[in-house]
Amino acid sequence: MKKFRLLTPGPTAVPEETLLELAKPVFFHRTPEFRQILGEVIEDLQYLFRTKNTVIPLTSSGTGGLEAALVNCVPRGKKAICLISGRFGARWRAICQAFGIEAVSVEVPRGQAVAPAQLEQALRDHPDAVAVCCTLSETSTGVANDVEAFGKIVSATPALLLVDAISGLAAMECRTDDWHIDVCVTGSQKALMLPPGLAFVSVSDKAWKQIEANRPCAFYFDLKKARQKLATHDTPFTPAHTLIRALRVSLKRLRAEGIEQLWVRQKRIAEAARAGFKAMGLELFASRPADGLTVVKVPENIDGVELLNRLEKKYGLKIAGGQDDLKGKIFRLAHMGYIDQFDVLAALAGVELVLLEMGYPLEPGRGLAAAQKMLASA
Amino acid sequence: MKKFRLLTPGPTAVPEETLLELAKPVFFHRTPEFRQILGEVIEDLQYLFRTKNTVIPLTSSGTGGLEAALVNCVPRGKKAICLISGRFGARWRAICQAFGIEAVSVEVPRGQAVAPAQLEQALRDHPDAVAVCCTLSETSTGVANDVEAFGKIVSATPALLLVDAISGLAAMECRTDDWHIDVCVTGSQKALMLPPGLAFVSVSDKAWKQIEANRPCAFYFDLKKARQKLATHDTPFTPAHTLIRALRVSLKRLRAEGIEQLWVRQKRIAEAARAGFKAMGLELFASRPADGLTVVKVPENIDGVELLNRLEKKYGLKIAGGQDDLKGKIFRLAHMGYIDQFDVLAALAGVELVLLEMGYPLEPGRGLAAAQKMLASA
Repeated sequence: MKKFRLLTPGPTAVPEETLLELAKPVFFHRTPEFRQILGEVIEDLQYLFRTKNTVIPLTSSGTGGLEAALVNCVPRGKKAICLISGRFGARWRAICQAFGIEAVSVEVPRGQAVAPAQLEQALRDHPDAVAVCCTLSETSTGVANDVEAFGKIVSATPALLLVDAISGLAAMECRTDDWHIDVCVTGSQKALMLPPGLAFVSVSDKAWKQIEANRPCAFYFDLKKARQKLATHDTPFTPAHTLIRALRVSLKRLRAEGIEQLWVRQKRIAEAARAGFKAMGLELFASRPADGLTVVKVPENIDGVELLNRLEKKYGLKIAGGQDDLKGKIFRLAHMGYIDQFDVLAALAGVELVLLEMGYPLEPGRGLAAAQKMLASA
Repeated sequence: MKKFRLLTPGPTAVPEETLLELAKPVFFHRTPEFRQILGEVIEDLQYLFRTKNTVIPLTSSGTGGLEAALVNCVPRGKKAICLISGRFGARWRAICQAFGIEAVSVEVPRGQAVAPAQLEQALRDHPDAVAVCCTLSETSTGVANDVEAFGKIVSATPALLLVDAISGLAAMECRTDDWHIDVCVTGSQKALMLPPGLAFVSVSDKAWKQIEANRPCAFYFDLKKARQKLATHDTPFTPAHTLIRALRVSLKRLRAEGIEQLWVRQKRIAEAARAGFKAMGLELFASRPADGLTVVKVPENIDGVELLNRLEKKYGLKIAGGQDDLKGKIFRLAHMGYIDQFDVLAALAGVELVLLEMGYPLEPGRGLAAAQKMLASA
């Protein structure tokens, strides 16, 4: 028997009770019953986002949520500062370019976080920037950016802070209102414990003022229209309503734990994962690591692609590799949503076993013990 | 016991085996296994579309597919002729307006189809039109437009024919290649027997030439990027991959029947539905009815909203009402996808019973007998 464990930073595993909800018969969406469900889901999302702002559901990948944020907030020809610490930060810039928005790039080497001082400098150089785009958890490198610090800086200016929190929200501390996040975007397939297909976008009053003044290059992603429909718990277009019904089940579970407790638990699991890999003699890739995933450098003389193949084929452990030219050089282990501390121990154990098989010098159990010590210390 | 039957023209009922597929554990999407699934699904869609063209999957509502068609094919400032026979035809115009495309409206009263001669005239008046946008099955009125005739006319010009086939594809005859449809759009939640969340867009060589020359106002809906990824059975962004896995199950079922046989069966069910309602003394709303739904006028002195409420509350029959100012004046019964001839008989029986309860003069069984006669005649 080989038990499969999905440990990639999205899509992530979905609780069995949520999967069963997805198998329920299809219902109609323009009904009081669905409006009730949508209302509950939005309210639970506001709780998880830590916001009083409207949270708008979109039927799309997370990228659709990022596009909605940008095209509604920043008019064509205007400027956005993009803080880029990896592939997903760079996505903000690519969206700007597609819509004729001037992107000012503040880019750091992969594995690093953008320093708040760099943002301050960029805002001094570009006081006409309409928005600052950043990533809470840069899924390609495992870096957490200091969004709290960014929020303090941006809120003192007329610019809006747009945050890609797709792999960060509900996987690590994120306080939308307290941190002055104007538009916060997440997706369904990460810490929210649902398959992909939905994105969620919270919008602050400061952002709505800007959005109301714009005539956006948008129809499907027109946030004003979505807000208007949401006032009666409705959507402008047929939503992926069976996903929304199932999301309610996953959100209830998250809410039952409590968001502050969840953040503490996530932090502890992340610390355990990091301690485990370090005790194996491995090096972490992120200088400022996120809590929802751990990114590890593949040791010299070890074939990183082969390492992941063996983990999957022999042990059923599906861990993500590096993207683009980081392929084979890093691996990325998710610990968010329905992935718990014991799944992380399984991953550490699998990595130990495969590294031993591949001739890497290692004392079996060292990584596990270090992780367990961290778990026990809390 | 009250058995629920979802008989609205989208979302529609989903086969049990497809629902169970949705409850299977989540898997990873950048794998040979998923590429195999996506490849099969695209090939089955090409079969159903009757096309050799690329069929591009999008994670969105059907409306996202319409937006993708327009913004990729028609540059800002250029002209599109919109053939409007109801709310969904009007959606094409609304998308044009959002993206700075000049919409030339050819509008007919609701219940009517656009005459091919009207299109010929519009093309004579606007030889600079880049595209003609139309609706195969106008879901708001039950009208089928003569897309075959439109195709003959448009193919003789440089313009592209964009077809909203969301409630039409696999519910009635639609020959993408033979009819010269350049971009054909459908959604997952109608005749394809899946919950909402996916749209599909086929693109002809003539359309690709135009698309390649454009710099579209698109990122998430950039069809060039999607085509590039699809060459290796991949997608630019995380797709709703569990929906795609489940779609494979529904498509296998459609393909096992055969598309020509399916069209014949759909036609027969539609004829039975129409014969049934007419035998009750009711009037059909559509002058040129589609095969995937039947739209019926609510008789004078009968409260149409109450009629639908009773059908749902007492008999579990969920039939759609009219939209906007047609609310209470018509009702819309779907017969596509997983809704079969006996479900239609159930709907006819329910309507008979409720009309009798509401004091409408009717001989019980007349509608049913007329429908059955039509079913038996085939």
